[in-house]
Formats: sequence, C-alpha cells, structure tokens
Amino acid sequence: MDKFKLSSKYESGAYNVWIEYNQLAAITKPLNLGQGFPDYEPPARITNFLAEVASEKNLYFHQYTRGLGHVRLVNVLSKLYSSLINREINPMEEVLVTVGAYEALFCVVQGNINEGDEAIIIEPFFDCYEPLIRIAGGTPRFIPLRNTKPDAPVSHSSDWKLDPAELESLFNSKTKLIILNTPHNPLGKIFDYDELTMIADLAKKHNVLVVSDEVYEWLVYEPSKHIRIATLPDMWERTITIGSAGKTFSMTGWKLGWAYGPSNLMKNLFVVHQTAIYTCATTVQEAVARGFEHEINLLDTPDSYFQNLSHELKPKMEYLSKVLQKNGFKPIIPDGGYFMVADWSKLESKLDLSSETDKYKDFQFTKWLSKNIKFQCMPYSVFFSENSRPTAESYTRFCFFKKDETLKKADSILTAWTSNIL
Amino acid sequence: MDKFKLSSKYESGAYNVWIEYNQLAAITKPLNLGQGFPDYEPPARITNFLAEVASEKNLYFHQYTRGLGHVRLVNVLSKLYSSLINREINPMEEVLVTVGAYEALFCVVQGNINEGDEAIIIEPFFDCYEPLIRIAGGTPRFIPLRNTKPDAPVSHSSDWKLDPAELESLFNSKTKLIILNTPHNPLGKIFDYDELTMIADLAKKHNVLVVSDEVYEWLVYEPSKHIRIATLPDMWERTITIGSAGKTFSMTGWKLGWAYGPSNLMKNLFVVHQTAIYTCATTVQEAVARGFEHEINLLDTPDSYFQNLSHELKPKMEYLSKVLQKNGFKPIIPDGGYFMVADWSKLESKLDLSSETDKYKDFQFTKWLSKNIKFQCMPYSVFFSENSRPTAESYTRFCFFKKDETLKKADSILTAWTSNIL
Repeated sequence: MDKFKLSSKYESGAYNVWIEYNQLAAITKPLNLGQGFPDYEPPARITNFLAEVASEKNLYFHQYTRGLGHVRLVNVLSKLYSSLINREINPMEEVLVTVGAYEALFCVVQGNINEGDEAIIIEPFFDCYEPLIRIAGGTPRFIPLRNTKPDAPVSHSSDWKLDPAELESLFNSKTKLIILNTPHNPLGKIFDYDELTMIADLAKKHNVLVVSDEVYEWLVYEPSKHIRIATLPDMWERTITIGSAGKTFSMTGWKLGWAYGPSNLMKNLFVVHQTAIYTCATTVQEAVARGFEHEINLLDTPDSYFQNLSHELKPKMEYLSKVLQKNGFKPIIPDGGYFMVADWSKLESKLDLSSETDKYKDFQFTKWLSKNIKFQCMPYSVFFSENSRPTAESYTRFCFFKKDETLKKADSILTAWTSNIL
Repeated sequence: MDKFKLSSKYESGAYNVWIEYNQLAAITKPLNLGQGFPDYEPPARITNFLAEVASEKNLYFHQYTRGLGHVRLVNVLSKLYSSLINREINPMEEVLVTVGAYEALFCVVQGNINEGDEAIIIEPFFDCYEPLIRIAGGTPRFIPLRNTKPDAPVSHSSDWKLDPAELESLFNSKTKLIILNTPHNPLGKIFDYDELTMIADLAKKHNVLVVSDEVYEWLVYEPSKHIRIATLPDMWERTITIGSAGKTFSMTGWKLGWAYGPSNLMKNLFVVHQTAIYTCATTVQEAVARGFEHEINLLDTPDSYFQNLSHELKPKMEYLSKVLQKNGFKPIIPDGGYFMVADWSKLESKLDLSSETDKYKDFQFTKWLSKNIKFQCMPYSVFFSENSRPTAESYTRFCFFKKDETLKKADSILTAWTSNIL
C-alpha cells in the first residue's frame, strides 16, 4: 500500500508537536502550562452572543453565508481596523474571514508561494510557519532574534533583536515574503518602531510582501505599544495583517480569524479560501460580529475587554516570573502575548534525564517533567528550524493565561520538586 | 506588482460560480432556487443544542479541542457509522472532523495526490472536484454519466449510467483515486449495487483509492436505497467516505463535516488538516455531537429526523417536477439529494438571449432569467469539464429544499412568464 503514502509535498507537516504533547498530557495528567489558552471562561458577553444567535430562529444564521466573510462581520472588522490603521478598509475586497488565524496563514502562503520562492522566517517562530512554506513549494530562510544582553541579571524580550545586516543578506530576487509576528509567540517581544522601519525598508527595497501575524495585538503590557506595520509609510500596499477572534476574546475554540490588506493581494487569499474551505460557520461569525460591535464602542473606556485583558494578565505574568526564578529558571520577561520563555540550564546538572530518548534536551526535560513532576510546559526548540535547535535546548515555554489558583499550584508543584534538588 | 499574482498552482480555483451567482442574486433579487440550502429553519432540537452549549459555562467548550475531532463527536460518529457499515470504526484513528465536507475533500486530495497522479471524476460533478485535483498537481480524467434512455417521455436520474469499458479505459498506472458521489449532486442519481460493484472491482484491480462523497446519504427517496461503497467486499481498505452535518441536519451554515476510513489512509488527511486548519470550532462540534446522540436512538423510529427529511422533501421534489414540466422544461427525476436537473431546450427558440455574452447557453439563459424574470437557478455546464460543457448547455439545476410557499411562488413566476411565450 506504499502507493497511498502521504503526498510528498506534505511530508514536512507530518509531525505536530501539539498533538504529541496533548497525547502526553492525556496520559500523565499534569498541571499544564503548555498549550496557549486560558483555563477559565471567556467573557460572558461574547458567549452569550453565540447563545443568542443560536436561539434567535433566524434561518439565515444556520445556512451558508458569504464565502469570503459574513457581511456583518467584515463590516465591523473594516470599521475597527480602518480606525486603528487610519485608512479606509473596503470590507468586501480587503478583508477575509478564516478558520482561525491558522487558515489565514495557510491562505496567504499557499496563494503567494510558488515552487522555488523564498520566505524569510524569524526564529523563534510559531511552529506552523515552516511546514506552511515547504508545503507550498517554497524555501524558508531563517534568521534568529539574538540576545543582545546575555549577561543581564534579568532578561527581557526586548533584548532579543534582529541584526539588520544579517537580515538584509537573506533578501534576494527569489524572496517572496517575510513573516513578522508581533507581539511575538513564544518570546513575547513587541517589535518597536525602529525595528519595524528596518524590516519595512528592506521589504520595500526588495519588493517583498510582509505577512504580519498580529494575533496577540491586544495582549500588550504597558508601557509597550503595539504598532501595526501596515501603518508605516507605503507599507499598506505590501502587507497582509492577520488577526484572531480566539486570541482577541480569549476563546481559542471558536476558531475564527481574518486577514486584511490591499485587494490585489487579498485576491490570492480569496482563491485559496474558496478552494479549501469555501466559507466559515455563520453562527460563529454573527456572534463575533456582535462581540466587536459591542467592544468597538468601549475601545478607550475602562470597560473595554481588550484593554482589561492586559491588566488582568500582567500580574499573572509577574507572578509566574517570580515562581520560575525562585525555582531555578531564568525567565525572559515578555512585553506582550501570554507566553514566557525561561532558561532551565541551571537545573540541568541536578537532573537525570537518561530515561528520555528525544534528540533535544528541552524535549527530554519537558517530557521528564510531565511524567515525573506532573507539570507540563513546551520545549523551546520546536519554535526553531532544525539547524538552530541546538541553540534553543536550554529553554522552555510556559503559558500564564491561567487561573491564579492554577499558577499557585504551579508554584507548589515546582517548589516541592526543586526544594529537593536546589 | 506582477510578482504578487496568484501562485500558479491555484489558477484553476480562481473562478467560483457560486460567488458569481450570489453576486448576481444580490443585484437582481430573484426567487432563488440556485444554491443548495433550505430557506426555512433547521430542526429546533439541533439549534437548541448550540444555544445550550454556548450558555453552559463550560470553559472547555470555548477553547481548542482535539485537533482531529472533538472526542464526543468522533465517538458518536464512529458509533453511528460502525453500525451503518457493520464494522468497528476506531474514533481516534479512523475519523477526521473537518470544516464541512468541503475541507474533507481538500484534505483527501491534497494528502494523496502527487504531481503527475491522475484522478477519475464522473461528470457531472460538484464543481470543486476539478480545481482540487489540479491544485494538488494532479490530472483529472473525466467520464460522463450517459443517458441510456434519451427517448423516454420522463427522464430519471437512474437512466444516467457509466459505460464500464469506458471507465476501465481511464485506469492506468498513474491513477491514484476516483471520486464517487452518491446520492449525486446535481443529478440526484443513487448508484445501485451493481454499479458500485463495477467501480469497486476496477478500484481493486488497479489498486486505486475511492473517495466517496456521501453528503446526501439521508436524502434518499423510496424505494431507492443508499449503499455505502465502503461496505462492499474488500473496499473498506481503499475507501475514504465523506459526510456532512450541514446536509444531515439541514444547516449548511454550521460548516462541519467528516471523513472516515482505514487509519493508514486517514493519516494523510490528518496531516493536511493539521497543517491548514489545526482544529474545528469546539462549540459547533459539541452541539453536533449532541444532535447525533439524540438521533442515533431514533434511527429506525418515526421520529428520526434523517428518515423524516426524505418524506418531507419527496412531495417538494414531485411538485417542482410538475411546475417545470408545465412550464416547458423536461426534468430528470432524482432518486436522492435536493436538486433537480431539467432540460430547457424547448424554451430556447422562444427566447432572445442576445443580451447575454457568456460562452455557454445555460449561463446565458440562467443570467437572463435572473435579470428579466427574477427567477434564479444554476447553469448545468458548471458541473462539467471544459471539453464536456457543450453537452450540458441545454440543462439547468434547481434546488427544491425550499418552503412550499417558495415553490408555489416559483410556479407563479414561471407560469406568468411562459404563458406569454409557450
């Protein structure tokens, strides 16, 4: 039956770390700070909208809606982002609604990458970027964010920077696009104006498309500010920006996202979307539209969920940082997002990981931790290309979008463990 | 900006007839029997499940669930289909939940077709099959269903048959898969046991995968019976069967489907799904699971929605057939599904379609009808490959899954029009 093996173009997508670690968690039943989602309820006003939509007896909510996006939703998305990027966005031609930001990424890469095209990916990166490029027939070119302050007693995500000359060296006539992720997963870095200008200038100079994954756009810790690269001079024309209802409203299970950009670029995404999916669930789109209509009026008020979310998360971030530090980890303090990366190398000499057979030490460590200490986090090397993984083995990633009670339990578990070895 | 044109592999997906005809309808505001969905509410018990799930304050319903399918849903799907195909289906390894049957088709084609592979498509066909094959790098090979009783006064979908020798001539060492659709869209044909056996024998002889699109599995008019090709001898091993919650529960807007088959074949779909989408909406999956749990207990009772649906639709089908006949069309009476194909050639000489510039006459006719008579149906040639379109121009497709009131209006509109020309 060798004839029916996976089509060769998908080979790079065969391994999925989330499936592996979710299966591990199903067995070990750990306290889980691995995957990125809250362990408490999303705002009732948004879940109530879905309940409303389902019960309203409006038959149109249960049948196919417009393929490229439910009209009420693309209208409110265009209204929101028009004001945020200070430019009129056409809801019918410049917005696409997708099955999560994930499908938006798939559409932008599949719709643009031809065999032989190159795409620049900044390391570390959300792990799906690399197979997406390869499956489309492209060649990823990687550049790391480098720690500019390796000796600082406390590390911050803003210490991790691109080298402009190194970045420019990756651009050539085959370069089709660069993927930017700000606020950044897993580092929590927020690219500042100068960094974005440097990237934008290279993209313009080399006529390259910027794919800006901004799913954590509302998860920004003061005094940091999220800047949309599409707002930089002459960048609208070459930027596709991606967002997520799951991240915006803390309900990753709704799986609704979007992309916006100039119509000539969006057309490519439209074709992929209508070929792979055709349209997203109407009920979910209608409920998210109502959620945005509600929030858009609260934007700069104390009742804004988007603003409150960061206020709610910042103490959790600070708490986890302390927990990790007192237990032998050296965290990198994020400016945004809901992840924290931490160096665990101080613990290494205290551990016997010989029972674990994975190639990389962070895989060994995180699996050992899940099995023996009943505590789960993610290996960091999964966010790197194969060649760069050795540089990442001494780190792990933690999600702190969890109940205070969960974070306290994390403290108890880690403290009970490290008190024996530190 | 030529650098940023659509990636060449997607060129065949650029045109989408549904988008074109929905845009037309938005302008002409016709009575619309075009796209396939009911214009009345789905069963309240299923929409109530979604309202329940949204309001239940169970945080897990709003976060990512298992990527390959929410556990409660794959469990009930496996229970249902295990009993229908009389074989134990493993819910974790032999079922995938997708964003509608559409994504299931995308996954099976992308996961199996390599550059140069051939796929057999039976004409007419659901229009997405052809671009799906081409985008994956495959070559579609077409074979028509031929009318074996062209002179019959009333045409039935069962009159349209494959020629076994012609079908066998398409098989060769490059043939990777054949797509079967039963009950069939647009013809409403239900492949009988002998026809399925003929296809199955060729698939076995030439070691070819059968993709069985069975989204209309419950829409079967007595005395016809739906037979699942996976139940034929030695066919489970080489069949991926595709189903749809949207068609099953009459709520196309929920966009939830599935595929089932042997684990070695399903693995290919899993990889595509986890690369393109990762997971489907949890709320929708939980609600559909409850819907199936409810229905599975009613299966052979008078309260079964699946059984009642055909009883509800058969009179609509018969009514539309009469309306079309008295207005100059010659319908093909379907055995399943909710579409009816009809020959409009008797009307042609009475019409001046010179205002319409489309290449094919059925496009001209349906557009003219939408603009001038405010009545919309679909051109039939869209369900054919380019070379075969001339054989399809004298037909159109109608959806009869509409309120009785809508069908009566269709009668009034058509009668008012044809009374002037017939």
